[in-house]
Amino acid sequence: MQLRDLGEFGLIDRIERAARRLGPSRGVVLGIGDDAAVLRVGPREDLVVTTDALVEDVHFRWSSESPRIVGRRALVASLSDLAAMGARPLGFTCALVAPPALSLRTLDGVLNGLLREAQTHSCPLVGGNLSRGRETSLTLTAIGAVGRGRALTRSGARFGDRICVTGSLGGVALDRARAERGLARVRRVPSPRLGAGRALTRLRGMGACIDVSDGLEADLQHLLGPSAMGATLDLAAVPRPPRFAARCARLGLDPDRLALAGGEDYELLFTLRRWAPSVAVLSRRLGVPVAEIGRVGVAGSGRGRSRDGKGGWRHF
Amino acid sequence: MQLRDLGEFGLIDRIERAARRLGPSRGVVLGIGDDAAVLRVGPREDLVVTTDALVEDVHFRWSSESPRIVGRRALVASLSDLAAMGARPLGFTCALVAPPALSLRTLDGVLNGLLREAQTHSCPLVGGNLSRGRETSLTLTAIGAVGRGRALTRSGARFGDRICVTGSLGGVALDRARAERGLARVRRVPSPRLGAGRALTRLRGMGACIDVSDGLEADLQHLLGPSAMGATLDLAAVPRPPRFAARCARLGLDPDRLALAGGEDYELLFTLRRWAPSVAVLSRRLGVPVAEIGRVGVAGSGRGRSRDGKGGWRHF
Repeated sequence: MQLRDLGEFGLIDRIERAARRLGPSRGVVLGIGDDAAVLRVGPREDLVVTTDALVEDVHFRWSSESPRIVGRRALVASLSDLAAMGARPLGFTCALVAPPALSLRTLDGVLNGLLREAQTHSCPLVGGNLSRGRETSLTLTAIGAVGRGRALTRSGARFGDRICVTGSLGGVALDRARAERGLARVRRVPSPRLGAGRALTRLRGMGACIDVSDGLEADLQHLLGPSAMGATLDLAAVPRPPRFAARCARLGLDPDRLALAGGEDYELLFTLRRWAPSVAVLSRRLGVPVAEIGRVGVAGSGRGRSRDGKGGWRHF
Repeated sequence: MQLRDLGEFGLIDRIERAARRLGPSRGVVLGIGDDAAVLRVGPREDLVVTTDALVEDVHFRWSSESPRIVGRRALVASLSDLAAMGARPLGFTCALVAPPALSLRTLDGVLNGLLREAQTHSCPLVGGNLSRGRETSLTLTAIGAVGRGRALTRSGARFGDRICVTGSLGGVALDRARAERGLARVRRVPSPRLGAGRALTRLRGMGACIDVSDGLEADLQHLLGPSAMGATLDLAAVPRPPRFAARCARLGLDPDRLALAGGEDYELLFTLRRWAPSVAVLSRRLGVPVAEIGRVGVAGSGRGRSRDGKGGWRHF
């Protein structure tokens, strides 16, 4: 059965019913089915809004991922942006563009993936849009709330800040490389660091924050860009998944490359003042592993240079 | 020059600069350029969120509309949804999917159209997403605020309610018919009824509300659907633009058809209790013409039937 057999309203009905099965949600005054959704934030909260799109053959391929994984990844990308701002999710909208010949089975898979992540992270589907098109795309807008004036931003880094990252990097890129070679389909989807982001909004000595979506190197540039600062990274300190080097070697891949430029890790990359808590204390508070991987320095001034000269450091 | 010559970051920079030229906006704590935007609502307000997509060759054609009109229409569709909820706009995000060969001139036109409407209605662009794709699409999410618990909804109609509509219907459909015949390009874009929507949230005797986007008949069905009620419409009372019948006749079009099913009028269609103010009083308060066009009745029961029997009434 294809999308065209169901029609727009049949499809909306199908999505509504699937979303309702998850039960009512705190903070949602009015969900799917009206001209717009109505949400409620606390009196001392700011709103956080982020929009992301996943386009067929650009961001995903039906041949290398199940529809369920595509749906999950779409929401995780948006939730990770909320995490990077320190926000708690309130709800999300989804605009689906799809060819009329798309199978209902594929659609249901995407929808199940979306709603599974939605339930896991208490971020209900509150509205959206359906349209036909030549290729499939999913555009998600996630709405969150954060304590007034407490949103984490990319612009809080200072000279001498410690650079930290949650979890590990490169694992998603390795999975993806395996999938591209036809060795396996993508199975793992990282978990957005929502709890860790919220904990960081309460941390004294917090600097700038971003989520690692383009890859560590690229996102570190985004983090330092506004301040015109540079950084020194300790390559050996960049956390990687278990048995990462061996698994990369088997495919002839450079583990450093994957950890630094892989992307879609959805870990939080942030800076801390020198006097902020140690990573051990931080790991406990955030509930996730935290590694210290470098220092913020002055770009090109030499002040941010390597300390060991063995090539184990990267300069930006 | 084409999109591919500019690259993603060049393009983001271009959009950021255009958006910044409009100046700072009240309610926007953090705009374009971070992982997400940060907005602020009042302590006694609810959030309103709506997502709409415009897809090339489905919702617009470059041959019959200027890029500027496409941009304007995209935002107007979203703002009209906010109007139908009685909300004031806070800001919007835009996800643009476009082929790399799209000309920069076209992109700039769309952007100018979007930002012109954004400025007119104090609804700043606060974020978005860019991606390549086979066809152009614009997915907009508009965020608004409304007094807590005061959002207008589709579900407030009661038996005996008067059915009213703002402005006039059919004008956009006529323009579109002319454009499809190659007689003229679409030039007019309706104005979303934001002020009228806000005034309706303060009205005693207010029933249900929706914006006319699919056409009067279809949207009236949406309005009555949840209540399983019917309605009687006085065809002659449905407001139309000046010289509408004559202009339709010249193209061999049925003016009733266009007024009832044209769509994209973006007027507000709403119901009022019998004892609510007269349309004359209402027009003054809302600042737009208001016409009373029928009554809510019980579907198929005969209670909502025609009073004159001359075929000038429609039953639902």
